[in-house]
Amino acid sequence: MINITADGILLSIEEIRARSPLIHNITNYVVMNTTANALLALGASPVMAHAEEEVRDMVALAGALVVNLGTLSPPWVKSAFIAAEEAAALKVPFIIDPVGAGATSYRTKTFRDLINAFPPTVIRGNASEIRALSTDSATTKGVDSTDPSYRAIDAAFRLAGLSGSVICISGETDYVVHKTNVVQVRNGHPMMSRVTGLGCTASALCGAFAAVQPDAARAVTEAMAVMGIAGELAAKGAPGPGTLQFRLIDALYRLGESDIRKCLNVEEGL
Amino acid sequence: MINITADGILLSIEEIRARSPLIHNITNYVVMNTTANALLALGASPVMAHAEEEVRDMVALAGALVVNLGTLSPPWVKSAFIAAEEAAALKVPFIIDPVGAGATSYRTKTFRDLINAFPPTVIRGNASEIRALSTDSATTKGVDSTDPSYRAIDAAFRLAGLSGSVICISGETDYVVHKTNVVQVRNGHPMMSRVTGLGCTASALCGAFAAVQPDAARAVTEAMAVMGIAGELAAKGAPGPGTLQFRLIDALYRLGESDIRKCLNVEEGL
Amino acid sequence: MINITADGILLSIEEIRARSPLIHNITNYVVMNTTANALLALGASPVMAHAEEEVRDMVALAGALVVNLGTLSPPWVKSAFIAAEEAAALKVPFIIDPVGAGATSYRTKTFRDLINAFPPTVIRGNASEIRALSTDSATTKGVDSTDPSYRAIDAAFRLAGLSGSVICISGETDYVVHKTNVVQVRNGHPMMSRVTGLGCTASALCGAFAAVQPDAARAVTEAMAVMGIAGELAAKGAPGPGTLQFRLIDALYRLGESDIRKCLNVEEGL
Repeated sequence: MINITADGILLSIEEIRARSPLIHNITNYVVMNTTANALLALGASPVMAHAEEEVRDMVALAGALVVNLGTLSPPWVKSAFIAAEEAAALKVPFIIDPVGAGATSYRTKTFRDLINAFPPTVIRGNASEIRALSTDSATTKGVDSTDPSYRAIDAAFRLAGLSGSVICISGETDYVVHKTNVVQVRNGHPMMSRVTGLGCTASALCGAFAAVQPDAARAVTEAMAVMGIAGELAAKGAPGPGTLQFRLIDALYRLGESDIRKCLNVEEGL
Repeated sequence: MINITADGILLSIEEIRARSPLIHNITNYVVMNTTANALLALGASPVMAHAEEEVRDMVALAGALVVNLGTLSPPWVKSAFIAAEEAAALKVPFIIDPVGAGATSYRTKTFRDLINAFPPTVIRGNASEIRALSTDSATTKGVDSTDPSYRAIDAAFRLAGLSGSVICISGETDYVVHKTNVVQVRNGHPMMSRVTGLGCTASALCGAFAAVQPDAARAVTEAMAVMGIAGELAAKGAPGPGTLQFRLIDALYRLGESDIRKCLNVEEGL
Repeated sequence: MINITADGILLSIEEIRARSPLIHNITNYVVMNTTANALLALGASPVMAHAEEEVRDMVALAGALVVNLGTLSPPWVKSAFIAAEEAAALKVPFIIDPVGAGATSYRTKTFRDLINAFPPTVIRGNASEIRALSTDSATTKGVDSTDPSYRAIDAAFRLAGLSGSVICISGETDYVVHKTNVVQVRNGHPMMSRVTGLGCTASALCGAFAAVQPDAARAVTEAMAVMGIAGELAAKGAPGPGTLQFRLIDALYRLGESDIRKCLNVEEGL
């Protein structure tokens, strides 16, 4: 049982706003601005840092490390390994977003190697990415999923077994898999898939919640619910994804008790 | 004759929305987020990837390759050459946006070398950039044009002759030059020049249209018309370029038959 | 006396709009899009360029050089040194934004070395950053200040004495320190601290004003006042920081005489 409640989510949000944990992101160029804004709007303090000369120092200050190699290249990969090692040593929650795993062998191999070397607290990806990490059949086309999320549930259990990580498959329904448990998060809005990098934002929010909530499965579920609820609020009446993108930031900033209580839509089990 | 019609444009948009072609962008840091959002809003599937370890694999999945070295450095240039070689081998449409050609000798030389080595399907730039590529008189100040677009028409014909590429000079009027033909696209709005990277977005749209429309001159003209029409819709009543930027994404998402039929403003010849 | 007036600010804005000075930014990935848009909205012409192969050429075209190493790594640091050397040789105004100084020893050392090697025209940072540069007690947590701005005034005077630079400490009140003078800029809005990179935008505006106003202390004070006033206008009725971010660009674009006269809130001395 992961046991998600509106009260629990509200408490975590309050903690994030009160403590403003530093979230260290090694993330891709596409989403840096929107990720930083989402974390700031929620109440956390984002930092982007990727030089091998400083990632150890930065991890030491951080409440969570979020690694998203959506625009990877060797120097960034090297720094991600160093940061992950430091996070393991200091027991800083470590979230991986395996953007585009399965699309190229370089991505698939990099993410597998990183997960094997430093098993993360959380792995959050779309169905294609989670399947690519847990099997040899890679079916990813670029960075958008070609599968509905439920098709990766078996893969997620396999990956959870191998890595010990909490696995989150995001999609129309998000599945959070941990050991033998699974929670479905049914919040969100279809237009969100037309805004670039909202998966990356969700991973960053997982970092913010993991920084204040020691139960990682609960932290991830809370983060995905908050992301989905903010998306629903942002999509209401939005003429298109340009509007949705900035309103999502506003929604994260304003998110209050009644929003959570009214919208929360999660279910334990399958 | 390139022969652009509203029906042709609508068919191409329908194709993009139905097939969601992967557009592989090797592009600059400034515009990655907005370019990805524009492609997603239109219905395409963007990916940004620049590591030499993976660009061949990514090109192989792509409906078009768009190279925009607006924030170039040697590793990116190297990857652009590798990707361009693969695109040539696989006959994947290849679009170059020569950002800032003429501003520094490094940019001018890089773009000329790339065009000579792997003649692109399409070259889209502002007047200063097109002139810098086709002559020795470089007059670019930074990345904004110092010339009106018509002043580069001779240069565009010269460049088209040398490279075999379709050349697009963007500006108040866009000129699409192919062999002995030229089409004028008079869509767009002056405020668009105050939003960073809309030229880069136009190049990415050229990639999306080239992925579904094998006649490159037609694809480019359709893309420029769609970009201009979306810009007109976005600018209507916009208090400034901040608003225009997000509304342009909404406009690409919502673009419908009546918008195209009502606004399309192209003319064959000079 | 720095002697800031609405008339002086209006004259500088007019100059920027008329001359459209090229502002060469070596800046971080997070803010490139918003910085470029802010400069364009104000009337300047931004360029982002960081390759050591071209930074000298770009500085030679520029009205100001703005170095912001918020996502630094060795190749960018090397280029910043080359660009700063060229700016010194050509007497191009040189602005440093020491993002995250104090957070890691790599950042603190890099900024100190750069300032020692090529004393900048202007250093603009938050209180934690200015303190970290002028003393050995680094208290920065990531990139957000942990101190109110007035706590860095002594440090700013020390740093001004060592470097000869104009120092700007930004915060709820901005302090511009030059030799024995200090000006307080009380414009701005608390929600601005929830939008990523508005400090970086302020530094870029310092570049635009320094390109047209040879008195650097005056240029910086004018820039900070304009940034604050645009922020106030943008925040009016904004439901959150997502809205504030795009409205700030609109506000910079529309900024007129009555806005400046009505809102300007600066005071000489302490």
